[in-house]
Amino acid sequence: MLQRIDHVGIACQSLEAAIEKYTSVFGLSLASEEVNEEQGVREAMLAVSPGSAGPFASYIQLLEPLSDSSPVGKFLARRGEGIHHVGYAVANVTEALATIEADGTVRLIDSRPRHGSMGASIAFLHPADLGGVLTELVQPAGPS
Amino acid sequence: MLQRIDHVGIACQSLEAAIEKYTSVFGLSLASEEVNEEQGVREAMLAVSPGSAGPFASYIQLLEPLSDSSPVGKFLARRGEGIHHVGYAVANVTEALATIEADGTVRLIDSRPRHGSMGASIAFLHPADLGGVLTELVQPAGPS
Repeated sequence: MLQRIDHVGIACQSLEAAIEKYTSVFGLSLASEEVNEEQGVREAMLAVSPGSAGPFASYIQLLEPLSDSSPVGKFLARRGEGIHHVGYAVANVTEALATIEADGTVRLIDSRPRHGSMGASIAFLHPADLGGVLTELVQPAGPS
Repeated sequence: MLQRIDHVGIACQSLEAAIEKYTSVFGLSLASEEVNEEQGVREAMLAVSPGSAGPFASYIQLLEPLSDSSPVGKFLARRGEGIHHVGYAVANVTEALATIEADGTVRLIDSRPRHGSMGASIAFLHPADLGGVLTELVQPAGPS
Protein backbone atom coordinates (compact mmCIF):
# COMPACT_ATOMS: atom_id res chain seq x y z
CA MET A 1 0.00 0.00 0.00
CA LEU A 2 2.77 2.46 0.95
CA GLN A 3 5.10 3.40 -1.89
CA ARG A 4 7.66 5.58 -0.14
CA ILE A 5 8.07 8.18 2.58
CA ASP A 6 6.63 11.21 0.81
CA HIS A 7 7.55 13.73 3.49
CA VAL A 8 8.14 14.50 7.13
CA GLY A 9 6.05 17.38 8.43
CA ILE A 10 7.93 19.68 10.80
CA ALA A 11 6.20 22.27 12.98
CA CYS A 12 8.09 25.55 13.28
CA GLN A 13 7.54 29.00 14.76
CA SER A 14 8.93 30.84 11.74
CA LEU A 15 8.63 29.44 8.24
CA GLU A 16 11.22 31.88 6.93
CA ALA A 17 13.80 30.92 9.56
CA ALA A 18 13.22 27.21 8.99
CA ILE A 19 13.50 27.54 5.20
CA GLU A 20 16.72 29.53 5.62
CA LYS A 21 18.15 26.87 7.95
CA TYR A 22 17.36 23.87 5.75
CA THR A 23 18.42 25.51 2.51
CA SER A 24 21.68 26.89 3.90
CA VAL A 25 22.82 23.89 5.97
CA PHE A 26 21.76 21.09 3.64
CA GLY A 27 21.58 22.89 0.30
CA LEU A 28 17.94 21.91 -0.22
CA SER A 29 15.79 23.72 -2.75
CA LEU A 30 12.33 25.17 -2.20
CA ALA A 31 9.81 23.24 -4.29
CA SER A 32 6.62 24.96 -3.15
CA GLU A 33 5.27 27.47 -0.66
CA GLU A 34 1.56 27.85 0.00
CA VAL A 35 -1.14 28.60 2.54
CA ASN A 36 -3.63 25.88 3.48
CA GLU A 37 -6.47 27.70 5.24
CA GLU A 38 -8.36 24.47 5.93
CA GLN A 39 -5.42 23.09 7.89
CA GLY A 40 -4.48 26.47 9.34
CA VAL A 41 -0.88 26.50 8.11
CA ARG A 42 1.61 28.31 5.97
CA GLU A 43 3.87 25.65 4.56
CA ALA A 44 6.93 25.03 2.44
CA MET A 45 8.03 21.89 0.66
CA LEU A 46 11.79 21.38 0.31
CA ALA A 47 12.86 18.67 -2.11
CA VAL A 48 15.23 16.22 -0.42
CA SER A 49 16.23 14.58 -3.66
CA PRO A 50 15.87 17.18 -6.40
CA GLY A 51 17.77 14.99 -8.85
CA SER A 52 15.25 12.19 -8.60
CA ALA A 53 12.00 13.86 -9.51
CA GLY A 54 8.75 12.05 -10.09
CA PRO A 55 7.88 8.85 -8.32
CA PHE A 56 10.88 8.91 -5.97
CA ALA A 57 10.73 12.52 -4.82
CA SER A 58 10.57 13.12 -1.08
CA TYR A 59 10.20 16.32 0.86
CA ILE A 60 10.68 18.13 4.11
CA GLN A 61 7.40 19.92 4.81
CA LEU A 62 7.80 22.95 7.08
CA LEU A 63 4.61 24.07 8.83
CA GLU A 64 3.96 27.41 10.51
CA PRO A 65 0.54 27.78 12.14
CA LEU A 66 -1.82 30.54 11.03
CA SER A 67 -3.15 30.78 14.58
CA ASP A 68 -2.52 29.43 18.07
CA SER A 69 -5.83 27.56 17.93
CA SER A 70 -4.96 25.60 14.77
CA PRO A 71 -3.77 21.99 15.15
CA VAL A 72 -0.14 22.93 14.49
CA GLY A 73 -0.47 25.96 16.80
CA LYS A 74 -1.67 23.68 19.60
CA PHE A 75 1.12 21.20 18.84
CA LEU A 76 3.74 23.97 19.18
CA ALA A 77 2.21 25.16 22.48
CA ARG A 78 2.18 21.62 23.87
CA ARG A 79 5.43 20.14 22.56
CA GLY A 80 7.45 22.90 20.95
CA GLU A 81 9.05 22.77 17.53
CA GLY A 82 9.72 19.35 16.05
CA ILE A 83 8.45 16.55 13.86
CA HIS A 84 4.67 16.80 13.57
CA HIS A 85 3.75 13.91 11.25
CA VAL A 86 4.95 11.60 8.52
CA GLY A 87 3.37 11.24 5.08
CA TYR A 88 3.52 8.12 2.93
CA ALA A 89 2.80 8.07 -0.77
CA VAL A 90 0.04 5.77 -1.99
CA ALA A 91 -1.20 5.11 -5.52
CA ASN A 92 -4.83 5.80 -4.62
CA VAL A 93 -5.76 7.43 -1.33
CA THR A 94 -9.47 6.52 -1.57
CA GLU A 95 -8.63 2.84 -2.01
CA ALA A 96 -6.06 2.99 0.79
CA LEU A 97 -8.65 4.49 3.17
CA ALA A 98 -11.12 1.75 2.26
CA THR A 99 -8.52 -0.94 2.97
CA ILE A 100 -7.59 0.57 6.32
CA GLU A 101 -11.21 1.07 7.30
CA ALA A 102 -11.96 -2.57 6.45
CA ASP A 103 -8.97 -3.72 8.55
CA GLY A 104 -10.58 -1.86 11.43
CA THR A 105 -7.63 -1.39 13.78
CA VAL A 106 -6.72 2.19 12.83
CA ARG A 107 -9.28 4.99 12.95
CA LEU A 108 -9.45 7.48 10.09
CA ILE A 109 -9.28 11.20 10.85
CA ASP A 110 -10.37 11.87 7.29
CA SER A 111 -12.85 9.39 5.87
CA ARG A 112 -12.57 11.11 2.51
CA PRO A 113 -9.50 12.71 0.88
CA ARG A 114 -8.87 16.41 1.19
CA HIS A 115 -6.56 18.92 -0.43
CA GLY A 116 -2.86 18.71 0.46
CA SER A 117 0.44 20.21 -0.66
CA MET A 118 1.17 20.70 -4.33
CA GLY A 119 -2.25 19.51 -5.43
CA ALA A 120 -2.06 16.14 -3.68
CA SER A 121 -5.06 14.28 -2.28
CA ILE A 122 -4.38 13.43 1.35
CA ALA A 123 -5.95 11.88 4.42
CA PHE A 124 -4.80 11.55 8.02
CA LEU A 125 -4.94 8.45 10.23
CA HIS A 126 -5.40 8.62 13.99
CA PRO A 127 -2.11 8.76 15.95
CA ALA A 128 -3.66 7.02 18.96
CA ASP A 129 -3.97 3.86 16.85
CA LEU A 130 -0.46 4.12 15.40
CA GLY A 131 1.78 4.45 18.43
CA GLY A 132 1.50 8.22 18.73
CA VAL A 133 2.44 8.83 15.10
CA LEU A 134 0.19 11.20 13.18
CA THR A 135 0.20 9.47 9.80
CA GLU A 136 -0.77 10.97 6.45
CA LEU A 137 -1.51 9.18 3.21
CA VAL A 138 -0.55 11.17 0.10
CA GLN A 139 -1.66 10.63 -3.46
CA PRO A 140 0.47 13.09 -5.39
CA ALA A 141 -1.14 15.13 -8.14
CA GLY A 142 -0.96 13.32 -11.45
CA PRO A 143 0.34 14.81 -14.70
CA SER A 144 -2.15 17.45 -15.85
CA MET B 1 24.02 16.60 0.40
CA LEU B 2 20.80 14.75 1.30
CA GLN B 3 19.78 12.04 -1.16
CA ARG B 4 16.46 10.92 0.25
CA ILE B 5 14.57 10.29 3.47
CA ASP B 6 16.17 7.03 4.56
CA HIS B 7 13.87 6.38 7.50
CA VAL B 8 11.71 7.76 10.25
CA GLY B 9 12.62 6.45 13.70
CA ILE B 10 9.61 5.70 15.90
CA ALA B 11 9.89 5.08 19.64
CA CYS B 12 7.61 2.33 20.92
CA GLN B 13 6.99 0.45 24.16
CA SER B 14 6.77 -2.95 22.50
CA LEU B 15 8.70 -3.77 19.35
CA GLU B 16 6.57 -6.87 18.72
CA ALA B 17 3.30 -4.95 18.96
CA ALA B 18 4.59 -2.18 16.68
CA ILE B 19 5.87 -4.65 14.07
CA GLU B 20 2.54 -6.47 14.14
CA LYS B 21 0.65 -3.18 13.68
CA TYR B 22 2.71 -1.90 10.74
CA THR B 23 2.89 -5.22 8.92
CA SER B 24 -0.82 -6.01 9.34
CA VAL B 25 -2.29 -2.56 8.61
CA PHE B 26 0.04 -1.48 5.82
CA GLY B 27 1.35 -4.80 4.55
CA LEU B 28 4.96 -3.80 5.16
CA SER B 29 7.71 -6.40 5.32
CA LEU B 30 10.37 -6.79 7.99
CA ALA B 31 13.79 -6.07 6.48
CA SER B 32 15.93 -6.36 9.59
CA GLU B 33 15.73 -6.79 13.34
CA GLU B 34 18.73 -6.18 15.60
CA VAL B 35 19.98 -4.98 18.96
CA ASN B 36 22.19 -1.88 19.12
CA GLU B 37 23.75 -1.94 22.59
CA GLU B 38 25.58 1.33 22.02
CA GLN B 39 22.32 3.16 21.38
CA GLY B 40 20.40 1.11 23.94
CA VAL B 41 17.70 -0.14 21.58
CA ARG B 42 16.09 -3.16 20.04
CA GLU B 43 15.05 -2.14 16.58
CA ALA B 44 13.29 -3.28 13.46
CA MET B 45 13.47 -1.90 9.94
CA LEU B 46 10.34 -2.20 7.83
CA ALA B 47 10.77 -1.55 4.12
CA VAL B 48 8.28 1.07 2.94
CA SER B 49 8.97 0.42 -0.72
CA PRO B 50 10.09 -3.20 -1.00
CA GLY B 51 9.74 -3.13 -4.77
CA SER B 52 12.29 -0.34 -5.14
CA ALA B 53 15.37 -1.75 -3.47
CA GLY B 54 18.77 -0.14 -3.54
CA PRO B 55 19.21 3.60 -3.75
CA PHE B 56 15.53 4.43 -3.34
CA ALA B 57 14.69 2.18 -0.40
CA SER B 58 13.18 3.85 2.65
CA TYR B 59 12.24 2.42 6.00
CA ILE B 60 10.18 2.75 9.13
CA GLN B 61 12.57 2.14 12.02
CA LEU B 62 10.85 0.93 15.17
CA LEU B 63 12.81 1.48 18.39
CA GLU B 64 12.21 -0.17 21.75
CA PRO B 65 14.54 0.94 24.56
CA LEU B 66 16.75 -1.61 26.34
CA SER B 67 16.40 0.42 29.55
CA ASP B 68 14.56 3.41 30.98
CA SER B 69 17.86 5.31 31.19
CA SER B 70 18.67 4.97 27.49
CA PRO B 71 17.94 7.95 25.19
CA VAL B 72 14.85 6.29 23.74
CA GLY B 73 13.75 5.20 27.23
CA LYS B 74 13.97 8.80 28.41
CA PHE B 75 12.13 9.99 25.30
CA LEU B 76 9.25 7.58 26.02
CA ALA B 77 9.06 8.70 29.66
CA ARG B 78 9.00 12.38 28.64
CA ARG B 79 6.85 12.37 25.51
CA GLY B 80 5.33 8.92 25.08
CA GLU B 81 5.36 6.86 21.93
CA GLY B 82 5.86 8.70 18.66
CA ILE B 83 8.32 9.89 16.04
CA HIS B 84 11.78 10.06 17.58
CA HIS B 85 13.98 11.20 14.67
CA VAL B 86 14.38 11.36 10.91
CA GLY B 87 17.29 9.90 8.96
CA TYR B 88 18.50 11.19 5.60
CA ALA B 89 20.71 9.21 3.25
CA VAL B 90 24.02 10.78 2.25
CA ALA B 91 26.71 9.46 -0.09
CA ASN B 92 29.49 9.94 2.45
CA VAL B 93 28.71 10.64 6.09
CA THR B 94 32.26 11.75 6.96
CA GLU B 95 32.20 14.36 4.20
CA ALA B 96 28.70 15.47 5.19
CA LEU B 97 29.80 15.98 8.81
CA ALA B 98 32.80 18.03 7.64
CA THR B 99 30.54 20.24 5.50
CA ILE B 100 28.08 20.80 8.35
CA GLU B 101 30.85 21.47 10.85
CA ALA B 102 32.38 24.02 8.48
CA ASP B 103 28.98 25.72 8.07
CA GLY B 104 28.95 26.10 11.83
CA THR B 105 25.26 26.64 12.52
CA VAL B 106 24.34 23.08 13.51
CA ARG B 107 26.20 21.22 16.27
CA LEU B 108 27.20 17.61 15.74
CA ILE B 109 26.22 15.02 18.33
CA ASP B 110 28.61 12.60 16.64
CA SER B 111 31.77 14.15 15.26
CA ARG B 112 32.67 10.80 13.76
CA PRO B 113 30.38 8.15 12.24
CA ARG B 114 29.20 5.23 14.29
CA HIS B 115 27.45 1.96 13.60
CA GLY B 116 23.78 2.11 12.57
CA SER B 117 21.08 -0.21 11.25
CA MET B 118 21.91 -2.81 8.62
CA GLY B 119 25.60 -1.99 8.60
CA ALA B 120 25.16 1.71 7.84
CA SER B 121 27.52 4.45 9.02
CA ILE B 122 25.51 7.09 10.83
CA ALA B 123 25.84 10.33 12.77
CA PHE B 124 23.34 12.48 14.64
CA LEU B 125 22.97 16.27 14.49
CA HIS B 126 21.77 18.33 17.44
CA PRO B 127 17.99 18.88 17.54
CA ALA B 128 18.35 22.23 19.32
CA ASP B 129 19.96 23.62 16.15
CA LEU B 130 17.39 22.08 13.80
CA GLY B 131 14.07 23.24 15.20
CA GLY B 132 13.66 20.40 17.66
CA VAL B 133 14.26 17.70 15.06
CA LEU B 134 16.75 15.00 15.99
CA THR B 135 18.40 14.47 12.61
CA GLU B 136 20.46 11.49 11.51
CA LEU B 137 22.75 11.18 8.50
CA VAL B 138 22.92 7.68 7.05
CA GLN B 139 25.49 6.25 4.69
CA PRO B 140 24.03 2.86 3.82
CA ALA B 141 26.36 -0.14 3.72
CA GLY B 142 27.85 -0.59 0.27
CA PRO B 143 27.86 -3.82 -1.70
CA SER B 144 30.21 -6.23 0.04
